[in-house]
Amino acid sequence: MKLELITIGNELLTGKTIDSNSAWLAEQFNILGVKTGRITSVSDSRDEIISILKEAEKRSDIVIMTGGLGPTSDDITKPVLCEFFQTKLVFRPEVFDNIKSLLGKKGHRINEHNRKQAEVPESATIVENMYGTAPGLWFEKEGTIFISLPGVPFEMKEIVRSGIIPGLKKLFEFPVIYYKTILTQGSFEAMLAEKLEKFEKEMPGDISLAYLPSPGIIKLRLGATGKDKEGLERRIEEQIRKLWQIIPEYIIGYDDDTLENIVGKLLNVSGQSLSLAESCTGGTIASLITAVSGSSKYFKGGIVAYSNEIKTDQLAINPDVLNKYGAVSRQVVEDMATNTRLLFNTDYAVSVSGIAGPSGGTPEKPVGTTWIAVSGRKSTISNEFRFGDNRERNIRRASLTALNMLRKYLLAESAINN
Amino acid sequence: MKLELITIGNELLTGKTIDSNSAWLAEQFNILGVKTGRITSVSDSRDEIISILKEAEKRSDIVIMTGGLGPTSDDITKPVLCEFFQTKLVFRPEVFDNIKSLLGKKGHRINEHNRKQAEVPESATIVENMYGTAPGLWFEKEGTIFISLPGVPFEMKEIVRSGIIPGLKKLFEFPVIYYKTILTQGSFEAMLAEKLEKFEKEMPGDISLAYLPSPGIIKLRLGATGKDKEGLERRIEEQIRKLWQIIPEYIIGYDDDTLENIVGKLLNVSGQSLSLAESCTGGTIASLITAVSGSSKYFKGGIVAYSNEIKTDQLAINPDVLNKYGAVSRQVVEDMATNTRLLFNTDYAVSVSGIAGPSGGTPEKPVGTTWIAVSGRKSTISNEFRFGDNRERNIRRASLTALNMLRKYLLAESAINN
Repeated sequence: MKLELITIGNELLTGKTIDSNSAWLAEQFNILGVKTGRITSVSDSRDEIISILKEAEKRSDIVIMTGGLGPTSDDITKPVLCEFFQTKLVFRPEVFDNIKSLLGKKGHRINEHNRKQAEVPESATIVENMYGTAPGLWFEKEGTIFISLPGVPFEMKEIVRSGIIPGLKKLFEFPVIYYKTILTQGSFEAMLAEKLEKFEKEMPGDISLAYLPSPGIIKLRLGATGKDKEGLERRIEEQIRKLWQIIPEYIIGYDDDTLENIVGKLLNVSGQSLSLAESCTGGTIASLITAVSGSSKYFKGGIVAYSNEIKTDQLAINPDVLNKYGAVSRQVVEDMATNTRLLFNTDYAVSVSGIAGPSGGTPEKPVGTTWIAVSGRKSTISNEFRFGDNRERNIRRASLTALNMLRKYLLAESAINN
Repeated sequence: MKLELITIGNELLTGKTIDSNSAWLAEQFNILGVKTGRITSVSDSRDEIISILKEAEKRSDIVIMTGGLGPTSDDITKPVLCEFFQTKLVFRPEVFDNIKSLLGKKGHRINEHNRKQAEVPESATIVENMYGTAPGLWFEKEGTIFISLPGVPFEMKEIVRSGIIPGLKKLFEFPVIYYKTILTQGSFEAMLAEKLEKFEKEMPGDISLAYLPSPGIIKLRLGATGKDKEGLERRIEEQIRKLWQIIPEYIIGYDDDTLENIVGKLLNVSGQSLSLAESCTGGTIASLITAVSGSSKYFKGGIVAYSNEIKTDQLAINPDVLNKYGAVSRQVVEDMATNTRLLFNTDYAVSVSGIAGPSGGTPEKPVGTTWIAVSGRKSTISNEFRFGDNRERNIRRASLTALNMLRKYLLAESAINN
């Protein structure tokens, strides 16, 4: 079964709107085991729409279009569909009733535009739009199914869930597909690829592996298609066990996990508390931690000690130590963590001090040099890292690396205690 | 000049990644007066890539591809490009030098994968990638220019800015187009649209106005196309003067300005310093301020006082005041600002205390209720805001609103002093 997606709208071709509809549709069908062959965006132009429909007809079994069905004048999809399917617009009372009922609920008057929305191509089957005035339209032409949907995301999604997917399931048999994503931190793509070369070669041919990199986190997505879900799950789990043997130090979680969520759960379960002392990350770690709803249960607060004065005055760092070793040093970052833990009266504290750049680097401590410490009631650990020369990414990487150091520290402690 | 964009990657066709690269590219070229004719996403498949390149060659003058140039095995674009352009991969020392220098700075070892990245199609002109290992590739075939770029957004953007656009400007005459973006804060789209209804009606027909909304900031982009740049500039400036008469209270800056930059410049010029006390924004304001390079000149640091204990212990908030009025109150937020200013010995301090949600709301103080204060040597001001019920957006809006309050306070002070 070949699926193709087409999004229609000038706003997509001027870059004003990012095409998130296609990604959503592709994901829904991917979960159902249907691969999307191609995604195309075209403008609200008769020629462009006719031309992509002709191309799609030749290569695909199902073509889903979104956009171009609204009431405003730059939306010309409906007349163009009539031309392509050699049909004409007719007034459909059941569509008009739906429009009247929707607008009535919002207390709006019915106008000429709304009446026009009840005119739909005669050969189309109507798919109800519960949340909007433009219905979904379902056409068949020489063995290809064409579906035209409004571009408003929440309307489109509901039509797909309640009307389109059930309709397609009556006509096609969908395969079973299973995905699992493994999150890694502390590595980079080329390094992982090298470590996993043998793994990839030995991987069964019907299992796929994709690298999904982002600053600080690289995701590995394993996927398999087959007949029974449990069998696929078992086979993917087997590959994950192998990954745990090859790159245990980099794996931090699965699927929608984030470091701030993982750390939050570990602290929440053990009923322990956290504080922070941030220099170069300037509050980024705190903002990640507090982005998690419920973080007030374990996060008490932190200090953004951007200037040396704050490090000495608020965090009681010895000025002699600061002068002797510099702010970016093991000594200072460990004292920052320990003093913050005591000052804020928490079980753990994390501290970061580094040179984010672009200025401030020296030959011994170039831009990107960063010290991170974790202090607990029993011990304080610290490490030096060399990130790159981009300020924004240095801040991001330092923040994620600090959260990962805390995660490892918490896991090691809970292993000792259990 | 016909431009076409192609994004390559299985992750796009499975919906794991939203194609934001195309929107960014379309916007950049739209600003230059070049319309994008079509955007297509295809998978990492030889047949799909060859087929879209053949189609694009027929209908477009410039074809920009992104993605598929990484070091891992699911990236097959390079060999396919060789096939399409009838050339072969050759090792290019200048590309390898760039890779070695980039990885060396990060302290990484060079491996076989990195060496392979220095193999590029022989007939391609190299466009330097300052931030990554895969260079941009520029091909010409029968009058059509094909450009292949890495898919990592920040790498791609820098190659486009510093290499691709200057290169294309040598070959093509771009129309003269002039844009100016006016940044507003504190309003929402429907409200601005209503206030600007008459302005839009009276605007000359060849000047365009686009609303570009994002959480907390709405941008108004005025544009005009013509022959001489200065004439266009004058005509746009005239419209901006009108905007200043209609919505003076919302305008905060222009084009690439950000509130954190504007505030930073104001503090830098006057040689004054800032500290922060954040509760519900949890370090977000500090992270915005410190994202600006050079912010250490005026930003000393801050306290993330997430728990009441930190508010009393570190910021010396009177527990009786906290109990009587609650943490989200004028009294507490003003004391937070004043005490932080004194504690951190800065000229100004900003404080925020609010209910970000989803829990913590009451009938009198629903989720979204936020108090913000600015304290200077002469006075402390505060205001209550009611944002919405989405935690992420509440944090963002509270942060931007706090920066805007500080901006207004600084401007008022400098007006009095001058």
